[in-house]
Amino acid sequence: MKLSMVADHAKWPRENDIIFNLSERAQKASEEVGKENVINATIGALIDDDGNLITIKNVYDQFKSLPNREIAAYASIAGQDDYKEAVKKICFAGNDPKGNIRVVASPGGSGAIKLAMWNYTNEGDAILTSDWYWSPYGIIGEEAGRKVANFKLFNDKGEFNIESFKEKFKEIIYKQGNIFIIINSPGHNPTGYSVSDKEWDQILDFSKKIAKDKSKKIVLFIDVAYIDYVKDDVASRKFFKKFGNLPENILTIVAFSMSKGFTAYGMRMGAAIGISSNEDIAEEFYFSLMHSCRANWSNCNRAAMSTLTHIVDDSKKLKSYKEEKNKYKDMLVRRAESFVQGAKEVELEILPYRDGFFISIPCDNPKEVCEKLTEKNLYLVPLKMGLRFAVCAVSEEKCKKAPKIIKDVLEENKSLSMNLA
Amino acid sequence: MKLSMVADHAKWPRENDIIFNLSERAQKASEEVGKENVINATIGALIDDDGNLITIKNVYDQFKSLPNREIAAYASIAGQDDYKEAVKKICFAGNDPKGNIRVVASPGGSGAIKLAMWNYTNEGDAILTSDWYWSPYGIIGEEAGRKVANFKLFNDKGEFNIESFKEKFKEIIYKQGNIFIIINSPGHNPTGYSVSDKEWDQILDFSKKIAKDKSKKIVLFIDVAYIDYVKDDVASRKFFKKFGNLPENILTIVAFSMSKGFTAYGMRMGAAIGISSNEDIAEEFYFSLMHSCRANWSNCNRAAMSTLTHIVDDSKKLKSYKEEKNKYKDMLVRRAESFVQGAKEVELEILPYRDGFFISIPCDNPKEVCEKLTEKNLYLVPLKMGLRFAVCAVSEEKCKKAPKIIKDVLEENKSLSMNLA
Repeated sequence: MKLSMVADHAKWPRENDIIFNLSERAQKASEEVGKENVINATIGALIDDDGNLITIKNVYDQFKSLPNREIAAYASIAGQDDYKEAVKKICFAGNDPKGNIRVVASPGGSGAIKLAMWNYTNEGDAILTSDWYWSPYGIIGEEAGRKVANFKLFNDKGEFNIESFKEKFKEIIYKQGNIFIIINSPGHNPTGYSVSDKEWDQILDFSKKIAKDKSKKIVLFIDVAYIDYVKDDVASRKFFKKFGNLPENILTIVAFSMSKGFTAYGMRMGAAIGISSNEDIAEEFYFSLMHSCRANWSNCNRAAMSTLTHIVDDSKKLKSYKEEKNKYKDMLVRRAESFVQGAKEVELEILPYRDGFFISIPCDNPKEVCEKLTEKNLYLVPLKMGLRFAVCAVSEEKCKKAPKIIKDVLEENKSLSMNLA
Repeated sequence: MKLSMVADHAKWPRENDIIFNLSERAQKASEEVGKENVINATIGALIDDDGNLITIKNVYDQFKSLPNREIAAYASIAGQDDYKEAVKKICFAGNDPKGNIRVVASPGGSGAIKLAMWNYTNEGDAILTSDWYWSPYGIIGEEAGRKVANFKLFNDKGEFNIESFKEKFKEIIYKQGNIFIIINSPGHNPTGYSVSDKEWDQILDFSKKIAKDKSKKIVLFIDVAYIDYVKDDVASRKFFKKFGNLPENILTIVAFSMSKGFTAYGMRMGAAIGISSNEDIAEEFYFSLMHSCRANWSNCNRAAMSTLTHIVDDSKKLKSYKEEKNKYKDMLVRRAESFVQGAKEVELEILPYRDGFFISIPCDNPKEVCEKLTEKNLYLVPLKMGLRFAVCAVSEEKCKKAPKIIKDVLEENKSLSMNLA
């Protein structure tokens, strides 16, 4: 037997990041055939029409103007107090749910997921999320022996599939006694779906019904990574109020991230926000997550915290930041509309897109289709059940053109499969 | 029974950070009685004589001159390739051990400890470190169900207690089959001890003896957080060469951190460096740790990585950085010498100090003594077996004065205990 030094639980396939690899290949292709001829829809970040990463100037001006000491100092384990306040202010924007709210800083949204999942699930537990989901949910879970269970995200009408949600919810809670549910909305990665206010009511009504049995414990984890790229900034935040006054055996955790809203991907700054009608449960949330901070990364990027705080606490800076951010949001909306329109014109089936960075195309053999598309100089990300196209990273013009290229390859693929069959 | 939502394994005493609290109290005292009358020896960071955090200008000039895009972009999961090379260059400084070396970026040294411990130990395992140790080793371990076992750091002569080390090593390896050993050297936190080259030979000779049984797996984890504050920068790194050509069932992991050497505490940037004579074991290290990165924090602070890389890759910048850093190191050496001299004069027993940020004073009832000292406006950190005095944070003048204050309180305490007995 080959010698191995790692623990059994730490043996994984030796894989490099697929998105990173595809993106590198796209870059190489750009050098070879000219970037105007390559569509790189792999990257989950805002990229301008020339292929450069967009950075919000207001954010970086603030970042670079920090005194050295404010960058250098250790932050508090759970985050600076003023940062915690700033997170609530920018995330809820006045729609604070009634109840007890605690904030724990984390390295990006990923760190918030880790903190919450570790503390609110047991080894062997199944975590519930939709069938279309961001794969790191699974990676974060499986690292610590958790599994992922899925409900169908869409019903036949292309709406949130509340029936499938209920069914899986019941299956898990009756088996485990507790449940940890991840909902990534608005601007779901990878589909761009946003749960409507009415659908939230259905989700919460059902959760409350289950919660009548006080022995059941329900954690609703809401990943709002893309909330700053929803058409209506005000309307998109109203749903936060719904998490006030819930039964004390329903804990809501919101994952906040600076990555997208502040084009601060590389800073690794976010937070887990716990909301409970019971103060002791909120305190428990705070101290359990803080323990995990210490036990995983100690504390977070001080400069990133200060940057957020200085912007949020200064109404003039906040206004400038929002204006600049919304300019890019408008760009994103135009790109997405182009893609959706283009798809309609060539009858390419896409999943219901509402907001955010990505649009998904359901298909068979995603990996093969993805490879075929690279031959046409179109690079996107293969998922289990389809393809993810990053409208955030592709110009409006190319977003318009892409659906036809994808449609053609899917058709070729289909006839190939039929011939083989 | 009171309602609780967290998993059983996530229930911890609800404690705030004791060092942070003590430091806050010291600050308040400074405001009340004047900072010249307060000694704040709690902080594990370089503080100038006026009580301000020291920041190496060369580091922050580089940091602030980065293009926005180099700050904003996601880093690769395991770290940028040029960062990985820069880490090896600055850490080993030419003393690269022979063999297969892999680097995985981490949020500070804490993140490197987490990555290594998680992947190379099993739940229930005992991790071996010295009886004087940095408490987060325990916190990181216990969060995931690992325990800490201790060998006695010092023998009667104030040298590394190789006999105690061997005894505990055998006890654990015969029970578990594997062992994970943490040695924090040079400039051990909290004692300031540095394992000598001869002592390293003893440690390695014994490890190799045990490793003759190929079923045994030995991981030597070496935390070099304070290596940049050793009197002789060149001599202090020679021991790295000893980790080359070890048996393949001994894996060495070095924890590198930018926190102290680059006064970049708040940036959270470090790395785990794996060294193995077997290439496959080195690859396994890389992929297992990379999986954990993705599953905990995704990726690390891009700006911090770039800062290190730009400095290390430019010989002029590197020279300026080192000159500036060594100025502060010289200051630290003078402070430590003052404290050691002051202790000798009043016959205060201290542990053998060699290098680094801290000096430890063994005593009974550390918490009570610590409280008593606050009444004399001296703030330091109580440990299990004594007190930790941060020479990094206290002026030379105050370092000279402090031993007498501590000695007096210890004497009072002693006579109090005797009267009570």
